[in-house]
Amino acid sequence: MSSKRQTNSAGLRRDIELLEVLGKYEVEHKSGLGVIRIAEMAGREKTQVSRALATLAEQGLVDRDPNTMFYRLGWRLYALSAQTFEAHLTSVAAPYLRRLAELAQETTHLCVLRHDEVLTLSTAAPAHGFRAVWEGLTSPAPSTSAGRVLLCEWDETSLAAKWTPEALASVMGQRIFKSTEELSDELKKVRQQGFSVVDEEFEIGVVGCSAPIRDASGRIVAAINIGAPKARLESKLDQAARLTRKVANELSQTLYSPS
Amino acid sequence: MSSKRQTNSAGLRRDIELLEVLGKYEVEHKSGLGVIRIAEMAGREKTQVSRALATLAEQGLVDRDPNTMFYRLGWRLYALSAQTFEAHLTSVAAPYLRRLAELAQETTHLCVLRHDEVLTLSTAAPAHGFRAVWEGLTSPAPSTSAGRVLLCEWDETSLAAKWTPEALASVMGQRIFKSTEELSDELKKVRQQGFSVVDEEFEIGVVGCSAPIRDASGRIVAAINIGAPKARLESKLDQAARLTRKVANELSQTLYSPS
Repeated sequence: MSSKRQTNSAGLRRDIELLEVLGKYEVEHKSGLGVIRIAEMAGREKTQVSRALATLAEQGLVDRDPNTMFYRLGWRLYALSAQTFEAHLTSVAAPYLRRLAELAQETTHLCVLRHDEVLTLSTAAPAHGFRAVWEGLTSPAPSTSAGRVLLCEWDETSLAAKWTPEALASVMGQRIFKSTEELSDELKKVRQQGFSVVDEEFEIGVVGCSAPIRDASGRIVAAINIGAPKARLESKLDQAARLTRKVANELSQTLYSPS
Repeated sequence: MSSKRQTNSAGLRRDIELLEVLGKYEVEHKSGLGVIRIAEMAGREKTQVSRALATLAEQGLVDRDPNTMFYRLGWRLYALSAQTFEAHLTSVAAPYLRRLAELAQETTHLCVLRHDEVLTLSTAAPAHGFRAVWEGLTSPAPSTSAGRVLLCEWDETSLAAKWTPEALASVMGQRIFKSTEELSDELKKVRQQGFSVVDEEFEIGVVGCSAPIRDASGRIVAAINIGAPKARLESKLDQAARLTRKVANELSQTLYSPS
Protein backbone atom coordinates (compact mmCIF):
# COMPACT_ATOMS: atom_id res chain seq x y z
CA MET A 1 0.00 0.00 0.00
CA SER A 2 2.76 2.41 0.98
CA SER A 3 4.70 1.45 -2.13
CA LYS A 4 1.59 1.90 -4.31
CA ARG A 5 1.14 5.39 -2.87
CA GLN A 6 4.68 6.35 -3.70
CA THR A 7 4.32 4.99 -7.21
CA ASN A 8 1.20 7.07 -7.82
CA SER A 9 2.73 10.32 -6.56
CA ALA A 10 5.96 9.70 -8.40
CA GLY A 11 3.97 9.00 -11.57
CA LEU A 12 2.03 12.24 -11.26
CA ARG A 13 5.25 14.16 -10.57
CA ARG A 14 6.91 12.69 -13.66
CA ASP A 15 3.91 13.45 -15.83
CA ILE A 16 3.81 17.05 -14.63
CA GLU A 17 7.51 17.31 -15.46
CA LEU A 18 6.58 16.66 -19.11
CA LEU A 19 4.74 19.99 -19.00
CA GLU A 20 7.94 21.63 -17.73
CA VAL A 21 9.90 20.09 -20.60
CA LEU A 22 7.42 21.48 -23.12
CA GLY A 23 7.38 24.86 -21.34
CA LYS A 24 11.14 25.24 -21.40
CA TYR A 25 11.37 24.25 -25.02
CA GLU A 26 8.58 26.54 -26.16
CA VAL A 27 10.26 29.57 -24.59
CA GLU A 28 12.96 29.23 -27.21
CA HIS A 29 11.29 27.73 -30.22
CA LYS A 30 7.54 28.42 -30.20
CA SER A 31 6.59 25.30 -32.10
CA GLY A 32 6.34 21.90 -30.46
CA LEU A 33 8.14 18.62 -29.85
CA GLY A 34 7.80 15.02 -30.98
CA VAL A 35 7.35 12.17 -28.50
CA ILE A 36 10.88 10.82 -29.03
CA ARG A 37 12.53 14.16 -28.25
CA ILE A 38 10.27 14.75 -25.23
CA ALA A 39 11.17 11.30 -23.86
CA GLU A 40 14.87 12.06 -24.37
CA MET A 41 14.62 15.42 -22.60
CA ALA A 42 12.65 13.90 -19.71
CA GLY A 43 14.99 10.89 -19.49
CA ARG A 44 12.05 8.49 -19.75
CA GLU A 45 10.94 5.59 -21.85
CA LYS A 46 9.11 6.49 -25.06
CA THR A 47 6.00 4.33 -24.64
CA GLN A 48 5.43 5.66 -21.10
CA VAL A 49 5.82 9.25 -22.25
CA SER A 50 3.56 8.64 -25.22
CA ARG A 51 0.83 7.28 -22.92
CA ALA A 52 1.13 10.16 -20.45
CA LEU A 53 1.01 12.73 -23.28
CA ALA A 54 -2.13 11.11 -24.68
CA THR A 55 -3.84 11.49 -21.30
CA LEU A 56 -2.60 15.07 -20.88
CA ALA A 57 -3.93 15.80 -24.40
CA GLU A 58 -7.37 14.36 -23.55
CA GLN A 59 -7.55 16.88 -20.72
CA GLY A 60 -6.28 19.76 -22.87
CA LEU A 61 -3.10 20.27 -20.80
CA VAL A 62 -1.14 19.58 -24.00
CA ASP A 63 -2.24 20.05 -27.61
CA ARG A 64 -1.11 17.89 -30.52
CA ASP A 65 -0.69 19.52 -33.91
CA PRO A 66 -2.74 17.44 -36.37
CA ASN A 67 -0.22 18.06 -39.16
CA THR A 68 3.19 17.71 -37.49
CA MET A 69 1.94 15.44 -34.63
CA PHE A 70 4.13 17.56 -32.33
CA TYR A 71 3.02 18.34 -28.80
CA ARG A 72 2.91 21.78 -27.19
CA LEU A 73 1.40 23.20 -24.00
CA GLY A 74 -2.38 23.12 -24.16
CA TRP A 75 -5.30 25.53 -24.01
CA ARG A 76 -6.57 24.28 -20.64
CA LEU A 77 -3.44 25.62 -18.94
CA TYR A 78 -4.47 29.01 -20.26
CA ALA A 79 -8.09 28.54 -19.17
CA LEU A 80 -7.12 27.34 -15.67
CA SER A 81 -4.52 30.06 -15.26
CA ALA A 82 -7.23 32.70 -15.73
CA GLN A 83 -8.70 31.51 -12.39
CA THR A 84 -5.47 31.83 -10.38
CA PHE A 85 -4.66 34.56 -7.85
CA GLU A 86 -1.82 35.55 -10.17
CA ALA A 87 -4.25 36.26 -13.04
CA HIS A 88 -6.50 38.31 -10.74
CA LEU A 89 -3.50 40.33 -9.57
CA THR A 90 -2.32 40.83 -13.17
CA SER A 91 -5.74 42.00 -14.29
CA VAL A 92 -6.16 44.55 -11.46
CA ALA A 93 -2.55 45.72 -11.84
CA ALA A 94 -2.65 46.21 -15.64
CA PRO A 95 -3.77 49.89 -15.70
CA TYR A 96 -1.28 50.77 -12.92
CA LEU A 97 1.60 49.15 -14.79
CA ARG A 98 0.63 50.98 -17.97
CA ARG A 99 0.38 54.31 -16.14
CA LEU A 100 3.80 53.82 -14.53
CA ALA A 101 5.25 52.88 -17.93
CA GLU A 102 3.90 56.10 -19.44
CA LEU A 103 4.99 58.29 -16.49
CA ALA A 104 8.51 56.83 -16.35
CA GLN A 105 8.73 56.17 -20.11
CA GLU A 106 10.27 52.79 -19.27
CA THR A 107 9.18 49.13 -19.28
CA THR A 108 7.44 47.99 -16.08
CA HIS A 109 6.89 44.53 -14.60
CA LEU A 110 4.65 42.88 -12.04
CA CYS A 111 6.57 40.26 -10.02
CA VAL A 112 5.90 37.70 -7.28
CA LEU A 113 8.12 35.34 -5.28
CA ARG A 114 7.51 31.63 -5.99
CA HIS A 115 9.76 28.85 -4.71
CA ASP A 116 12.45 31.44 -3.83
CA GLU A 117 12.55 32.81 -7.36
CA VAL A 118 11.09 35.98 -8.82
CA LEU A 119 8.32 35.18 -11.32
CA THR A 120 7.38 37.96 -13.75
CA LEU A 121 3.60 37.94 -14.21
CA SER A 122 3.18 40.75 -16.70
CA THR A 123 4.91 43.58 -18.50
CA ALA A 124 3.88 46.96 -19.86
CA ALA A 125 5.92 49.20 -22.12
CA PRO A 126 5.26 52.88 -22.90
CA ALA A 127 3.07 53.38 -25.99
CA HIS A 128 3.47 49.78 -27.21
CA GLY A 129 0.97 47.98 -24.98
CA PHE A 130 2.26 44.66 -23.68
CA ARG A 131 5.67 43.14 -24.24
CA ALA A 132 5.86 39.48 -23.32
CA VAL A 133 9.62 39.07 -22.97
CA TRP A 134 9.78 38.13 -19.27
CA GLU A 135 6.24 36.95 -18.60
CA GLY A 136 6.21 33.51 -16.99
CA LEU A 137 9.98 33.44 -16.48
CA THR A 138 11.88 33.43 -13.20
CA SER A 139 15.12 34.96 -11.93
CA PRO A 140 17.09 34.64 -8.64
CA ALA A 141 15.61 36.84 -5.92
CA PRO A 142 18.74 38.46 -4.36
CA SER A 143 20.06 39.82 -7.67
CA THR A 144 16.95 41.75 -8.74
CA SER A 145 15.32 44.81 -7.18
CA ALA A 146 11.92 43.06 -7.24
CA GLY A 147 13.40 40.05 -5.45
CA ARG A 148 14.87 42.24 -2.69
CA VAL A 149 11.49 43.88 -2.16
CA LEU A 150 9.84 40.43 -1.98
CA LEU A 151 12.47 39.16 0.51
CA CYS A 152 12.71 42.29 2.63
CA GLU A 153 10.36 41.14 5.39
CA TRP A 154 11.66 37.57 5.68
CA ASP A 155 12.82 36.80 9.21
CA GLU A 156 16.55 36.22 9.84
CA THR A 157 16.12 32.47 10.32
CA SER A 158 14.42 31.92 6.95
CA LEU A 159 16.96 34.15 5.21
CA ALA A 160 19.91 32.32 6.76
CA ALA A 161 18.41 28.90 5.94
CA LYS A 162 17.78 29.68 2.29
CA TRP A 163 20.43 32.22 1.36
CA THR A 164 23.61 30.64 2.61
CA PRO A 165 26.85 31.97 1.08
CA GLU A 166 26.83 28.90 -1.20
CA ALA A 167 23.26 29.60 -2.39
CA LEU A 168 24.15 33.26 -2.98
CA ALA A 169 27.29 32.33 -4.94
CA SER A 170 25.38 29.82 -7.07
CA VAL A 171 22.83 32.39 -8.27
CA MET A 172 25.01 35.48 -8.45
CA GLY A 173 28.59 34.45 -9.05
CA GLN A 174 31.12 36.82 -7.47
CA ARG A 175 29.13 39.96 -7.97
CA ILE A 176 27.49 40.78 -4.62
CA PHE A 177 26.43 39.53 -1.19
CA LYS A 178 29.17 37.14 -0.12
CA SER A 179 27.34 36.47 3.16
CA THR A 180 23.76 36.29 4.44
CA GLU A 181 24.57 39.34 6.59
CA GLU A 182 25.39 41.46 3.54
CA LEU A 183 22.06 40.47 1.97
CA SER A 184 20.26 41.12 5.27
CA ASP A 185 21.77 44.61 5.59
CA GLU A 186 20.62 45.47 2.06
CA LEU A 187 17.11 44.19 2.83
CA LYS A 188 16.92 46.38 5.96
CA LYS A 189 17.66 49.40 3.77
CA VAL A 190 14.94 48.33 1.31
CA ARG A 191 12.46 47.98 4.18
CA GLN A 192 13.25 51.47 5.47
CA GLN A 193 13.11 53.13 2.04
CA GLY A 194 10.02 51.32 0.83
CA PHE A 195 11.79 50.64 -2.45
CA SER A 196 14.82 48.84 -3.86
CA VAL A 197 17.36 49.75 -6.53
CA VAL A 198 19.90 47.59 -8.38
CA ASP A 199 22.81 48.79 -10.48
CA GLU A 200 24.07 46.10 -12.88
CA GLU A 201 23.63 43.44 -10.18
CA PHE A 202 21.15 41.45 -12.23
CA GLU A 203 22.57 42.13 -15.67
CA ILE A 204 25.53 44.20 -16.89
CA GLY A 205 24.32 47.51 -18.35
CA VAL A 206 20.91 47.32 -16.66
CA VAL A 207 19.58 49.28 -13.67
CA GLY A 208 16.23 48.81 -11.95
CA CYS A 209 13.96 49.77 -9.08
CA SER A 210 11.01 48.09 -7.35
CA ALA A 211 8.39 48.75 -4.69
CA PRO A 212 6.11 46.40 -2.73
CA ILE A 213 2.40 45.63 -3.15
CA ARG A 214 0.83 44.71 0.21
CA ASP A 215 -2.30 42.82 1.17
CA ALA A 216 -4.87 44.10 3.68
CA SER A 217 -2.77 42.84 6.61
CA GLY A 218 0.31 44.69 5.35
CA ARG A 219 2.12 41.58 4.10
CA ILE A 220 4.11 41.97 0.85
CA VAL A 221 2.51 39.85 -1.91
CA ALA A 222 4.04 41.29 -5.10
CA ALA A 223 6.36 43.96 -6.46
CA ILE A 224 6.23 46.51 -9.26
CA ASN A 225 9.48 46.93 -11.12
CA ILE A 226 11.14 49.21 -13.66
CA GLY A 227 14.19 47.95 -15.54
CA ALA A 228 16.15 49.94 -18.13
CA PRO A 229 19.57 50.46 -19.76
CA LYS A 230 21.94 52.12 -17.29
CA ALA A 231 22.89 54.88 -19.75
CA ARG A 232 19.27 56.01 -19.94
CA LEU A 233 17.91 55.60 -16.40
CA GLU A 234 20.89 55.91 -14.03
CA SER A 235 20.59 59.66 -13.40
CA LYS A 236 16.84 59.37 -12.75
CA LEU A 237 16.86 56.06 -10.85
CA ASP A 238 15.98 57.48 -7.43
CA GLN A 239 13.15 59.53 -8.92
CA ALA A 240 11.85 56.44 -10.77
CA ALA A 241 11.98 54.43 -7.51
CA ARG A 242 9.84 57.01 -5.69
CA LEU A 243 7.35 57.05 -8.56
CA THR A 244 7.22 53.24 -8.50
CA ARG A 245 6.58 53.30 -4.72
CA LYS A 246 3.72 55.77 -5.22
CA VAL A 247 2.01 53.68 -7.91
CA ALA A 248 2.57 50.46 -5.90
CA ASN A 249 0.89 52.05 -2.85
CA GLU A 250 -2.10 53.07 -4.96
CA LEU A 251 -2.39 49.54 -6.39
CA SER A 252 -2.21 48.03 -2.86
CA GLN A 253 -5.13 50.19 -1.80
CA THR A 254 -7.23 49.25 -4.84
CA LEU A 255 -6.47 45.52 -4.55
CA TYR A 256 -7.39 45.13 -0.92
CA SER A 257 -9.78 47.91 -0.02
CA PRO A 258 -13.32 46.61 0.68
CA SER A 259 -15.51 47.55 -2.30
CA MET B 1 0.77 -4.67 -17.99
CA SER B 2 -2.28 -3.46 -19.87
CA SER B 3 -4.15 -3.07 -16.57
CA LYS B 4 -1.23 -1.13 -15.04
CA ARG B 5 -1.28 1.23 -17.99
CA GLN B 6 -4.94 1.93 -17.57
CA THR B 7 -4.47 2.55 -13.84
CA ASN B 8 -1.74 5.10 -14.47
CA SER B 9 -3.69 7.03 -17.11
CA ALA B 10 -6.86 6.91 -15.05
CA GLY B 11 -4.92 8.17 -12.04
CA LEU B 12 -3.47 11.08 -13.98
CA ARG B 13 -6.89 11.90 -15.40
CA ARG B 14 -8.45 11.92 -11.93
CA ASP B 15 -5.68 14.11 -10.54
CA ILE B 16 -6.07 16.62 -13.35
CA GLU B 17 -9.79 16.69 -12.61
CA LEU B 18 -8.91 18.07 -9.16
CA LEU B 19 -7.59 21.15 -10.97
CA GLU B 20 -10.93 21.45 -12.75
CA VAL B 21 -12.77 21.25 -9.42
CA LEU B 22 -10.62 24.06 -8.02
CA GLY B 23 -11.01 26.09 -11.24
CA LYS B 24 -14.79 25.87 -11.24
CA TYR B 25 -15.01 26.79 -7.58
CA GLU B 26 -12.64 29.73 -7.85
CA VAL B 27 -14.68 31.29 -10.62
CA GLU B 28 -17.41 31.90 -8.08
CA HIS B 29 -15.63 32.34 -4.78
CA LYS B 30 -12.03 33.49 -5.29
CA SER B 31 -10.73 31.87 -2.14
CA GLY B 32 -9.91 28.17 -1.89
CA LEU B 33 -11.19 24.80 -0.75
CA GLY B 34 -10.34 22.32 2.00
CA VAL B 35 -9.40 18.73 1.24
CA ILE B 36 -12.71 17.29 2.49
CA ARG B 37 -14.79 19.53 0.22
CA ILE B 38 -12.52 18.89 -2.77
CA ALA B 39 -12.84 15.12 -2.22
CA GLU B 40 -16.65 15.48 -2.02
CA MET B 41 -16.82 17.52 -5.22
CA ALA B 42 -14.53 15.09 -7.06
CA GLY B 43 -16.39 12.05 -5.68
CA ARG B 44 -13.14 10.56 -4.40
CA GLU B 45 -11.70 9.26 -1.18
CA LYS B 46 -10.15 11.90 1.10
CA THR B 47 -6.73 10.28 1.68
CA GLN B 48 -6.24 9.75 -2.07
CA VAL B 49 -7.20 13.34 -2.82
CA SER B 50 -4.98 14.64 -0.01
CA ARG B 51 -2.01 12.74 -1.46
CA ALA B 52 -2.63 13.95 -5.01
CA LEU B 53 -3.00 17.57 -3.83
CA ALA B 54 0.29 17.34 -1.92
CA THR B 55 2.05 16.24 -5.12
CA LEU B 56 0.32 18.92 -7.18
CA ALA B 57 1.38 21.48 -4.53
CA GLU B 58 5.02 20.36 -4.68
CA GLN B 59 4.93 21.14 -8.41
CA GLY B 60 3.16 24.49 -7.91
CA LEU B 61 0.05 23.41 -9.84
CA VAL B 62 -1.93 24.13 -6.65
CA ASP B 63 -1.04 26.48 -3.78
CA ARG B 64 -1.96 25.87 -0.15
CA ASP B 65 -2.75 28.89 2.01
CA PRO B 66 -0.50 28.62 5.10
CA ASN B 67 -3.22 30.14 7.31
CA THR B 68 -6.46 28.50 6.16
CA MET B 69 -4.78 25.33 4.74
CA PHE B 70 -7.17 25.70 1.79
CA TYR B 71 -6.03 24.81 -1.71
CA ARG B 72 -6.38 26.98 -4.79
CA LEU B 73 -4.97 26.84 -8.32
CA GLY B 74 -1.22 27.43 -8.29
CA TRP B 75 1.30 29.85 -9.71
CA ARG B 76 2.88 27.31 -12.05
CA LEU B 77 -0.33 27.16 -14.10
CA TYR B 78 0.13 30.87 -14.66
CA ALA B 79 3.83 30.45 -15.50
CA LEU B 80 3.19 27.55 -17.92
CA SER B 81 0.23 29.31 -19.52
CA ALA B 82 2.51 32.19 -20.52
CA GLN B 83 4.25 29.72 -22.90
CA THR B 84 1.08 28.54 -24.67
CA PHE B 85 -0.05 29.47 -28.17
CA GLU B 86 -3.09 31.08 -26.53
CA ALA B 87 -0.87 33.47 -24.52
CA HIS B 88 1.10 34.38 -27.65
CA LEU B 89 -2.13 35.09 -29.53
CA THR B 90 -3.44 37.17 -26.60
CA SER B 91 -0.27 39.20 -26.40
CA VAL B 92 -0.14 40.00 -30.13
CA ALA B 93 -3.90 40.70 -30.22
CA ALA B 94 -3.97 43.05 -27.19
CA PRO B 95 -3.39 46.36 -29.01
CA TYR B 96 -5.92 45.35 -31.74
CA LEU B 97 -8.58 44.52 -29.15
CA ARG B 98 -7.96 47.82 -27.37
CA ARG B 99 -8.15 49.77 -30.64
CA LEU B 100 -11.43 48.08 -31.61
CA ALA B 101 -12.81 48.79 -28.12
CA GLU B 102 -11.96 52.49 -28.52
CA LEU B 103 -13.29 52.71 -32.09
CA ALA B 104 -16.57 50.93 -31.30
CA GLN B 105 -16.76 52.21 -27.71
CA GLU B 106 -17.78 48.69 -26.66
CA THR B 107 -16.18 45.74 -24.87
CA THR B 108 -14.23 43.40 -27.16
CA HIS B 109 -13.14 39.77 -26.74
CA LEU B 110 -10.62 37.38 -28.26
CA CYS B 111 -12.09 33.87 -28.59
CA VAL B 112 -11.00 30.39 -29.71
CA LEU B 113 -12.80 27.07 -30.15
CA ARG B 114 -11.67 24.33 -27.74
CA HIS B 115 -13.46 21.01 -27.35
CA ASP B 116 -16.49 22.40 -29.23
CA GLU B 117 -16.87 25.35 -26.84
CA VAL B 118 -15.93 28.99 -27.26
CA LEU B 119 -13.12 29.94 -24.85
CA THR B 120 -12.64 33.66 -24.18
CA LEU B 121 -8.91 34.38 -23.97
CA SER B 122 -8.97 38.10 -23.23
CA THR B 123 -11.13 41.17 -22.99
CA ALA B 124 -10.63 44.89 -23.58
CA ALA B 125 -13.00 47.68 -22.64
CA PRO B 126 -12.94 51.30 -23.84
CA ALA B 127 -10.88 53.57 -21.56
CA HIS B 128 -10.81 51.06 -18.69
CA GLY B 129 -8.02 48.72 -19.83
CA PHE B 130 -8.81 45.07 -19.21
CA ARG B 131 -11.98 43.56 -17.80
CA ALA B 132 -11.58 39.94 -16.78
CA VAL B 133 -15.23 38.88 -16.66
CA TRP B 134 -15.17 36.21 -19.37
CA GLU B 135 -11.50 35.35 -19.56
CA GLY B 136 -10.91 31.62 -19.25
CA LEU B 137 -14.63 30.80 -19.43
CA THR B 138 -16.42 28.88 -22.17
CA SER B 139 -19.83 29.10 -23.84
CA PRO B 140 -21.66 26.92 -26.41
CA ALA B 141 -20.46 27.65 -29.94
CA PRO B 142 -23.75 27.83 -31.93
CA SER B 143 -25.32 30.47 -29.68
CA THR B 144 -22.56 33.08 -29.89
CA SER B 145 -21.36 35.14 -32.85
CA ALA B 146 -17.74 34.14 -32.08
CA GLY B 147 -18.74 30.47 -32.07
CA ARG B 148 -20.43 30.75 -35.45
CA VAL B 149 -17.32 32.34 -36.92
CA LEU B 150 -15.20 29.54 -35.45
CA LEU B 151 -17.56 26.85 -36.82
CA CYS B 152 -18.20 28.42 -40.20
CA GLU B 153 -15.66 26.37 -42.15
CA TRP B 154 -16.41 23.00 -40.55
CA ASP B 155 -17.37 20.40 -43.15
CA GLU B 156 -20.96 19.09 -43.21
CA THR B 157 -19.99 15.69 -41.76
CA SER B 158 -18.30 17.14 -38.67
CA LEU B 159 -21.17 19.57 -38.13
CA ALA B 160 -23.81 16.84 -38.41
CA ALA B 161 -21.85 14.54 -36.08
CA LYS B 162 -21.41 17.12 -33.35
CA TRP B 163 -24.42 19.41 -33.66
CA THR B 164 -27.32 16.99 -33.79
CA PRO B 165 -30.75 18.45 -32.95
CA GLU B 166 -30.32 16.99 -29.44
CA ALA B 167 -26.92 18.66 -28.94
CA LEU B 168 -28.34 21.96 -30.22
CA ALA B 169 -31.34 21.73 -27.90
CA SER B 170 -29.16 20.92 -24.90
CA VAL B 171 -27.01 24.03 -25.28
CA MET B 172 -29.61 26.47 -26.55
CA GLY B 173 -33.03 25.41 -25.32
CA GLN B 174 -35.84 26.31 -27.72
CA ARG B 175 -34.36 29.50 -29.00
CA ILE B 176 -32.76 28.74 -32.38
CA PHE B 177 -31.47 26.10 -34.80
CA LYS B 178 -33.80 23.15 -34.38
CA SER B 179 -31.80 21.19 -36.96
CA THR B 180 -28.24 20.88 -38.17
CA GLU B 181 -29.44 22.29 -41.52
CA GLU B 182 -30.61 25.52 -39.91
CA LEU B 183 -27.22 25.91 -38.23
CA SER B 184 -25.46 25.04 -41.49
CA ASP B 185 -27.44 27.67 -43.42
CA GLU B 186 -26.51 30.33 -40.87
CA LEU B 187 -22.82 29.32 -41.09
CA LYS B 188 -22.91 29.65 -44.91
CA LYS B 189 -24.11 33.21 -44.47
CA VAL B 190 -21.31 33.92 -41.96
CA ARG B 191 -18.76 32.51 -44.42
CA GLN B 192 -20.02 34.73 -47.23
CA GLN B 193 -20.19 37.90 -45.10
CA GLY B 194 -16.89 37.39 -43.31
CA PHE B 195 -18.62 38.21 -40.03
CA SER B 196 -21.37 36.97 -37.75
CA VAL B 197 -24.07 38.75 -35.76
CA VAL B 198 -26.33 37.48 -32.95
CA ASP B 199 -29.41 39.17 -31.58
CA GLU B 200 -30.34 37.90 -28.09
CA GLU B 201 -29.45 34.34 -29.14
CA PHE B 202 -26.75 34.00 -26.50
CA GLU B 203 -28.33 36.11 -23.79
CA ILE B 204 -31.57 38.08 -23.60
CA GLY B 205 -30.91 41.82 -24.06
CA VAL B 206 -27.47 41.27 -25.62
CA VAL B 207 -26.37 41.62 -29.25
CA GLY B 208 -22.95 40.83 -30.66
CA CYS B 209 -20.77 40.51 -33.73
CA SER B 210 -17.56 38.61 -34.56
CA ALA B 211 -15.01 38.19 -37.33
CA PRO B 212 -12.38 35.51 -37.98
CA ILE B 213 -8.62 35.56 -37.43
CA ARG B 214 -6.86 33.32 -39.96
CA ASP B 215 -3.46 31.65 -40.03
CA ALA B 216 -1.05 31.85 -42.97
CA SER B 217 -2.87 29.00 -44.78
CA GLY B 218 -6.22 30.78 -44.42
CA ARG B 219 -7.58 28.51 -41.68
CA ILE B 220 -9.69 30.20 -38.96
CA VAL B 221 -7.86 29.99 -35.61
CA ALA B 222 -9.64 32.61 -33.49
CA ALA B 223 -12.36 35.26 -33.52
CA ILE B 224 -12.64 38.87 -32.39
CA ASN B 225 -15.98 39.70 -30.81
CA ILE B 226 -18.00 42.71 -29.67
CA GLY B 227 -20.87 42.16 -27.24
CA ALA B 228 -23.17 44.90 -25.90
CA PRO B 229 -26.65 45.70 -24.58
CA LYS B 230 -29.19 45.55 -27.40
CA ALA B 231 -30.58 49.02 -26.61
CA ARG B 232 -27.17 50.56 -27.22
CA LEU B 233 -25.69 48.63 -30.14
CA GLU B 234 -28.63 47.28 -32.19
CA SER B 235 -28.86 50.21 -34.62
CA LYS B 236 -25.08 50.16 -35.24
CA LEU B 237 -24.59 46.36 -35.23
CA ASP B 238 -23.86 45.97 -38.93
CA GLN B 239 -21.39 48.85 -38.81
CA ALA B 240 -19.69 47.32 -35.74
CA ALA B 241 -19.46 43.95 -37.55
CA ARG B 242 -17.66 45.54 -40.53
CA LEU B 243 -15.28 47.36 -38.19
CA THR B 244 -14.59 44.08 -36.34
CA ARG B 245 -13.90 42.34 -39.68
CA LYS B 246 -11.43 45.09 -40.65
CA VAL B 247 -9.50 44.88 -37.35
CA ALA B 248 -9.53 41.04 -37.45
CA ASN B 249 -8.04 41.10 -40.97
CA GLU B 250 -5.28 43.44 -39.82
CA LEU B 251 -4.51 41.20 -36.83
CA SER B 252 -4.38 38.11 -39.11
CA GLN B 253 -1.80 39.81 -41.26
CA THR B 254 0.36 40.82 -38.29
CA LEU B 255 0.15 37.39 -36.65
CA TYR B 256 1.16 35.37 -39.65
CA SER B 257 3.15 37.60 -41.97
CA PRO B 258 6.82 36.62 -42.15
CA SER B 259 8.83 39.21 -40.22
